[in-house]
Amino acid sequence: MNYADVFTKAIDRLHAEGRYRVFIDILRNKGAYPNARCFGGHNGPKPITVWCSNDYLSMGQHPKVTAAMEEALHDVGAGSGGTRNIGGNTHYHVDLEAELADLHGKQGALLFTSGYVSNDATLSTLAKILPGCIVYSDELNHASMIAGIRNAGCEKRVYRHNDMAHLEELLAADDPEAPKLVAFESVYSMDGDIAPIADICDLADKYNALTYCDEVHAVGMYGPRGGGITERDGLAERVTIIEGTLGKAFGVMGGYITTDKMIIDVIRSYAPGFIFTTSLSPVLVAGVLASVRHLKASSAERDAQQANAAMLKALFAEAGLPVMPSTTHIVPLMVGDPVKTKKISDILLAEYGMYVQPINFPTVPRGTERLRFTPGPTHDEAMIRALVGALVEIWTREELRLAA
Amino acid sequence: MNYADVFTKAIDRLHAEGRYRVFIDILRNKGAYPNARCFGGHNGPKPITVWCSNDYLSMGQHPKVTAAMEEALHDVGAGSGGTRNIGGNTHYHVDLEAELADLHGKQGALLFTSGYVSNDATLSTLAKILPGCIVYSDELNHASMIAGIRNAGCEKRVYRHNDMAHLEELLAADDPEAPKLVAFESVYSMDGDIAPIADICDLADKYNALTYCDEVHAVGMYGPRGGGITERDGLAERVTIIEGTLGKAFGVMGGYITTDKMIIDVIRSYAPGFIFTTSLSPVLVAGVLASVRHLKASSAERDAQQANAAMLKALFAEAGLPVMPSTTHIVPLMVGDPVKTKKISDILLAEYGMYVQPINFPTVPRGTERLRFTPGPTHDEAMIRALVGALVEIWTREELRLAA
Repeated sequence: MNYADVFTKAIDRLHAEGRYRVFIDILRNKGAYPNARCFGGHNGPKPITVWCSNDYLSMGQHPKVTAAMEEALHDVGAGSGGTRNIGGNTHYHVDLEAELADLHGKQGALLFTSGYVSNDATLSTLAKILPGCIVYSDELNHASMIAGIRNAGCEKRVYRHNDMAHLEELLAADDPEAPKLVAFESVYSMDGDIAPIADICDLADKYNALTYCDEVHAVGMYGPRGGGITERDGLAERVTIIEGTLGKAFGVMGGYITTDKMIIDVIRSYAPGFIFTTSLSPVLVAGVLASVRHLKASSAERDAQQANAAMLKALFAEAGLPVMPSTTHIVPLMVGDPVKTKKISDILLAEYGMYVQPINFPTVPRGTERLRFTPGPTHDEAMIRALVGALVEIWTREELRLAA
Repeated sequence: MNYADVFTKAIDRLHAEGRYRVFIDILRNKGAYPNARCFGGHNGPKPITVWCSNDYLSMGQHPKVTAAMEEALHDVGAGSGGTRNIGGNTHYHVDLEAELADLHGKQGALLFTSGYVSNDATLSTLAKILPGCIVYSDELNHASMIAGIRNAGCEKRVYRHNDMAHLEELLAADDPEAPKLVAFESVYSMDGDIAPIADICDLADKYNALTYCDEVHAVGMYGPRGGGITERDGLAERVTIIEGTLGKAFGVMGGYITTDKMIIDVIRSYAPGFIFTTSLSPVLVAGVLASVRHLKASSAERDAQQANAAMLKALFAEAGLPVMPSTTHIVPLMVGDPVKTKKISDILLAEYGMYVQPINFPTVPRGTERLRFTPGPTHDEAMIRALVGALVEIWTREELRLAA
């Protein structure tokens, strides 16, 4: 048994497929986002424009957020010092869970160290607690949902993306008495499309299934108070569990679920991924509290972000670039090849100082490699036009395929 | 299928066993730790002394740590805005990984959002990458290691706690050509004992196995630079992968592994729990950098903490309280019953303003429920004597068993 051989071959496979990843080393300039500095060349930090941050609304830079974090840092210090059960349950955690429950109109909420852990811990625990549970999972669900379902060791049915006829076919084929859970996302972040949530809830009612909706790309972004697509469409009450992140539109870090008190009690009492981990730093929690409260009352950031996303999509289409039909704030440009995608991204960064990461397998299916742009409220029109101009130049000189 | 019934029964089981957990709602007073405030009564925050924090050295309160976090907050903002691959790789992350690799004398390090995720992601990925891998796991390993091994779906052999004869018996019984990994902790946090690391490495050499050592309760705490038990005993080079946390002795939040460059490359390229999650907030990373650098150069915190732990153990023994034979900084008092353990803890908090959490199943095996004290460098002698006095009173009036 030669371990180095196995490891070398695993890495070689990535190189051969053109999907070996290199971390781009950056620091954002607070107060001047999307401007940032890129390290890693020989000639010191270089100014760049960031086009692929999930801090969609620049809330990570918001004065209310940073002020709240500074206050918490001075009041209680850096870390929580323990798990939620053992010394690490601060008053900030209690307050934020109440705020998030209110945001979604639910009885309770539970914080996790990340959205990934929220999904993994909740789905795996729920499906273990319910004997014989069958999980129905959209084929494009995020890796963390897939991990949670797999780690539950339960029966799983994968339905075609947003295909309600297929979901119903699968639900109808199973024992009516078996516990069932339909797991899906509201906004699919790599395509930018939205699930038919009302239809999923109708099917769940018909077949007595629970529903689990991952809103990580929608919380803060949609609905009059930022409660996500379920708030925008008046569906929050119909979904059993809504899961969200604190690291994208809310600009900080962490994840959560919100649901009724009984399910919160079960998850916090049984999920190893919740129980056996140091709780979120109170500094982060304080920042999120400020962010959630601000976005409950202000739609200015959401409106500006949507306007910029619409402008970028329109200019991409006008230039004949293969922009995908996103119905949300996400602007993906299809390339369909991992090597070309990485090359475009490298040229953009090296020659134009524009940073967008190539998206390749396993984040998206092979053959659908793409660039994914997330314009924020502070990307101005000049930046947007410069980006489109750069891409048109690169598309021409690299002889890439334009839109059909 | 009545979901509420199943959930209610799951919670009822916990009540019936006396192990239903209630979060204690606290805020630490920065600069005055172990003093804190306890919320949750009707009469406002009440001053308490914390006896169960894993911020073992009070580094979460250290001026260098909070100053570094404040500086990062002002320089780059609250969150990283993305995964390490997509927009969330900041220069702080790169610097901290270099610092941690140096701390352990390894080629590289990799940050995770928590110690739990470090273990889960690394163990599950390693055992999947190595075809036919068998993992040998100490029976008292932490829940996160158990999760990682289970999620790998590989063969697992559980050896009796720190029992080298049993480990060898299991290693010898398996195919010599099969990839093997021995997973253990250096300090077992609920008993306070230490693994025979040199013996484990000898067996690993003999049977061509990799080794994985969880040092979460030891990093920052042992060794001249805080490199853990493996540094103290000169064994870091012999262990393949050392895993640590940033949320205990380093006082902030997060986890990491440190190992050779090839394995780092494999884990960062293949582990879903690393790839698909927003990276640690740069504010946290900046705080940890300051903490690690401080503890590399200063042993004052370690020395004071060890002195206080020794004093508490000696006074417990002198008073006839059933202190367990810990060889480390952890001071567990055996009660052996979940209801009594919780009652002692409740009385301590309500009547004496002393906070120590009851430790019950699944954190420890049933029948070994205990109180676990973690005196820090800032618990003074008066506090320690007051704690012992309070416990003697409670032990007497509750007619609890004294030490044999």
